Amino acid sequence: METIKIIIAGPRGRMGLEAVKLVHNTENFELAAVLDRRNNGMNLSGLAGFEGMEAPIYTDLDECFSSVKADVLIDLTTPEFGMAHAEKALEYGIRPVVGTTGFTNEDLLRLESLTEEKGLGCIIAPNFAIGAILMMKFAQMAGKYFKDIEIIEMHHDQKLDAPSGTAVKTAQLISEVREDKTQGHPSEKETIPGARGADMNGMRIHSVRLPGLVAHQQVMFGMEGQLLTIRHDSFNRASFMSGVRLAVEEVMKIDVLVYGLENVIE
Amino acid sequence: METIKIIIAGPRGRMGLEAVKLVHNTENFELAAVLDRRNNGMNLSGLAGFEGMEAPIYTDLDECFSSVKADVLIDLTTPEFGMAHAEKALEYGIRPVVGTTGFTNEDLLRLESLTEEKGLGCIIAPNFAIGAILMMKFAQMAGKYFKDIEIIEMHHDQKLDAPSGTAVKTAQLISEVREDKTQGHPSEKETIPGARGADMNGMRIHSVRLPGLVAHQQVMFGMEGQLLTIRHDSFNRASFMSGVRLAVEEVMKIDVLVYGLENVIE
Amino acid sequence: METIKIIIAGPRGRMGLEAVKLVHNTENFELAAVLDRRNNGMNLSGLAGFEGMEAPIYTDLDECFSSVKADVLIDLTTPEFGMAHAEKALEYGIRPVVGTTGFTNEDLLRLESLTEEKGLGCIIAPNFAIGAILMMKFAQMAGKYFKDIEIIEMHHDQKLDAPSGTAVKTAQLISEVREDKTQGHPSEKETIPGARGADMNGMRIHSVRLPGLVAHQQVMFGMEGQLLTIRHDSFNRASFMSGVRLAVEEVMKIDVLVYGLENVIE
Amino acid sequence: METIKIIIAGPRGRMGLEAVKLVHNTENFELAAVLDRRNNGMNLSGLAGFEGMEAPIYTDLDECFSSVKADVLIDLTTPEFGMAHAEKALEYGIRPVVGTTGFTNEDLLRLESLTEEKGLGCIIAPNFAIGAILMMKFAQMAGKYFKDIEIIEMHHDQKLDAPSGTAVKTAQLISEVREDKTQGHPSEKETIPGARGADMNGMRIHSVRLPGLVAHQQVMFGMEGQLLTIRHDSFNRASFMSGVRLAVEEVMKIDVLVYGLENVIE
Repeated sequence: METIKIIIAGPRGRMGLEAVKLVHNTENFELAAVLDRRNNGMNLSGLAGFEGMEAPIYTDLDECFSSVKADVLIDLTTPEFGMAHAEKALEYGIRPVVGTTGFTNEDLLRLESLTEEKGLGCIIAPNFAIGAILMMKFAQMAGKYFKDIEIIEMHHDQKLDAPSGTAVKTAQLISEVREDKTQGHPSEKETIPGARGADMNGMRIHSVRLPGLVAHQQVMFGMEGQLLTIRHDSFNRASFMSGVRLAVEEVMKIDVLVYGLENVIE
Repeated sequence: METIKIIIAGPRGRMGLEAVKLVHNTENFELAAVLDRRNNGMNLSGLAGFEGMEAPIYTDLDECFSSVKADVLIDLTTPEFGMAHAEKALEYGIRPVVGTTGFTNEDLLRLESLTEEKGLGCIIAPNFAIGAILMMKFAQMAGKYFKDIEIIEMHHDQKLDAPSGTAVKTAQLISEVREDKTQGHPSEKETIPGARGADMNGMRIHSVRLPGLVAHQQVMFGMEGQLLTIRHDSFNRASFMSGVRLAVEEVMKIDVLVYGLENVIE
Repeated sequence: METIKIIIAGPRGRMGLEAVKLVHNTENFELAAVLDRRNNGMNLSGLAGFEGMEAPIYTDLDECFSSVKADVLIDLTTPEFGMAHAEKALEYGIRPVVGTTGFTNEDLLRLESLTEEKGLGCIIAPNFAIGAILMMKFAQMAGKYFKDIEIIEMHHDQKLDAPSGTAVKTAQLISEVREDKTQGHPSEKETIPGARGADMNGMRIHSVRLPGLVAHQQVMFGMEGQLLTIRHDSFNRASFMSGVRLAVEEVMKIDVLVYGLENVIE
Repeated sequence: METIKIIIAGPRGRMGLEAVKLVHNTENFELAAVLDRRNNGMNLSGLAGFEGMEAPIYTDLDECFSSVKADVLIDLTTPEFGMAHAEKALEYGIRPVVGTTGFTNEDLLRLESLTEEKGLGCIIAPNFAIGAILMMKFAQMAGKYFKDIEIIEMHHDQKLDAPSGTAVKTAQLISEVREDKTQGHPSEKETIPGARGADMNGMRIHSVRLPGLVAHQQVMFGMEGQLLTIRHDSFNRASFMSGVRLAVEEVMKIDVLVYGLENVIE
């Protein structure tokens, strides 16, 4: 395998730090440089926590992209930076892998025309947990054959919103292939309100919140005599890094914009 | 083990039929007679479905209890019959095992004084599924140490009420040992109503309804860094019979009224 | 939807009986006739357990297929009968849906040329439980991204062989897309033999046997920080009928031989 | 609640650090001092990672116990230190809470006579995860009623031994109340060796090893028509601290030696 030279933006952020470790520990990946808001001109290995991870630090985009020969930019920062970084990278012939939500349709159209112009791949992904992406993909596939579906998502009790974004997205994906159908008995009755969960196109979503939990979701499909269950457990943020690695490998093979990691998974 | 002679009321009902099979298949149990609304004087083995199961059929209580020497009466019929049958059985020196809900406090007091008077055991149990009873017992015990608890009960989609009676009873048992506590983040927000389930003293209950399911419940206890789960799956009505067997064995050892099978389980 | 006229072979067998009920209860299905080893010339509705289910009974294939206008033959009997029935049905212009294992390659080649000759669809399926088929399909897809996989299959304790055929087939399907890899720590050690389960190309299979269980399987995929689980629970034989219905609908749309229901599922 | 004054041994170890945080964050707990191998005379709050956690550091046991007025010693170090620390603490009137395996019977007898002599409580616990302890306790209770039991324990793939110590201990506890019984069909056959798991008194134990997993165990009890499952998930080492807190509170109420946290749980 040929070595892929990589620039990482925001190495001191929580996700950035994991990305630095990933590149450092992956055989055919090489850390070419990092983009940071400070420490211009220093070497990353001089910072606490990055011992042995050699890479020049740049604060200026143009300086970085013009000085360093790189194949891929990994950006796990924020939507505003992500967009600016992706555009600039493409201009310099570097393929962006950006992990963030919040891109507008305009942003995506702009990136699409840039990738076309440059003949370079670009991957924008709101979620890098391969397991979660497969769960959603399988759930949509199963939704063609099973019409009765309930989702149980389980998170730590510091989470503010219920249901979770992933649960809502899963239900939306299923709704694309499933005719709306009210589930349960037509005369069913809640003796305590909320027992039957949140209703989304007739599917039911239940949100469990307990200390100790991290991020878990199970999608249950019922049919006479049988039950199919697809479950994803995310125990910590390392779960994102396998998706980042996959995206880096895939972005080298394509010359278009891909939005959503599910679209590089067969 | 000494043989226990048993009379069964309502042998042609769904539960009665299972009870007849249980007695027939248990080594130290013997079917002494059956009480039925018809076929007086016939033998049970002459009815379709009961081939080989010898036992005289009686329609009259007094005639049955005075003619047949029996140790235990199993009654899985209805509350009204159950009460009349239990009283009469005790008067004739036979120990009742009655499986039904709907006994009033007056009924129980009346049976209590009768058992005392006669020095005979009597077990009245609304639920004979040993696994479900253990689940509730363990849930209550765990509720002393874990203060954050959510219950997910899952049934076939023909069930009318949500949450299930077992889920409500489980939450009540836990509430006896747990100070009321509102769970989840103080600022948590349902973006679709019902997501967080039914609230019972701060605990949350979620009711899943899907074709294919039978009767399932899991009680989840969360604490920093860990999760304890107690789950019971009931796949069919055979699950009740192990509890009936236990009750028959226990009723021979006691000389008081016991209400609830959980009270003969250590 | 146009009505599909159906002949069922072996209506008095356990699966055949379920198939008769399925056709009887499906709006656009019509029971045209049944093939049985006895009762030639009688009507099915005259037999105990089939009250109200009108259909002429034939014992002779040629007589049945020449007298009755039908679209589909459902055969859930045995391989030897299945093959003979399928051939004859195709000759008479009737599309076979056959549920059995044990077809030889020769049988399949013979049926393939017959379907081509006649321009008629034919579906041969060893397994009609849609949930089990999806489980295997998803497991194979996930096997491309997750290299560490363990299978837990759980059955009633009267099952003789371990692991189950479904577990072995699942592992084989995964092996087609996963490079063999020994899992677990290189120095791991069983202090009691068998703890780590059965080894199949480095994957591990665990067979649980307990009274009360029916037929269940979960496939677990692990990766740094996350777990993906695909599980199927089969509670009773009704679980097969949704697959039979799907096969009947699909066989009307195709003009080739399809082996395995997974190949009509997208 | 009265404040409990606490000395912690080994504050810089992984478990010691968690204990320091626990004491710091618990309202009625007060950190009186720490015992460490270095930094004698310094204050804990001066060390990196302990900012704001005031407590004098001692390297000498006698000096520490004679200078500091304390109620409880928490020792989560090693068996050799644990024993010496516990003895010395009792001599100075301080109640030990020691979390370690490896105490000999002689050690326990010695501590028992010391607690008697001093009239002070002492708790030695190999496991502080309350959920795991409850799982084992419930498993033993259920083993009286369910005779068919299988254990599935699941850990990360860096674990060397299979089955886990907790699984073996669970099976031992169940064996105390269950007559040995060979499970499964008498003629069952492994077509791949190991499928049926490790045999312990007729119970079966299955060890799953996957990256991503932490430490999980489920005990399954089967009976005609039903299944009871008790499961514990340990996600990180914070799971131990609730047990340490409970032990500190309980050791203040007793005047004997207690071995095993299960013995302070009702």
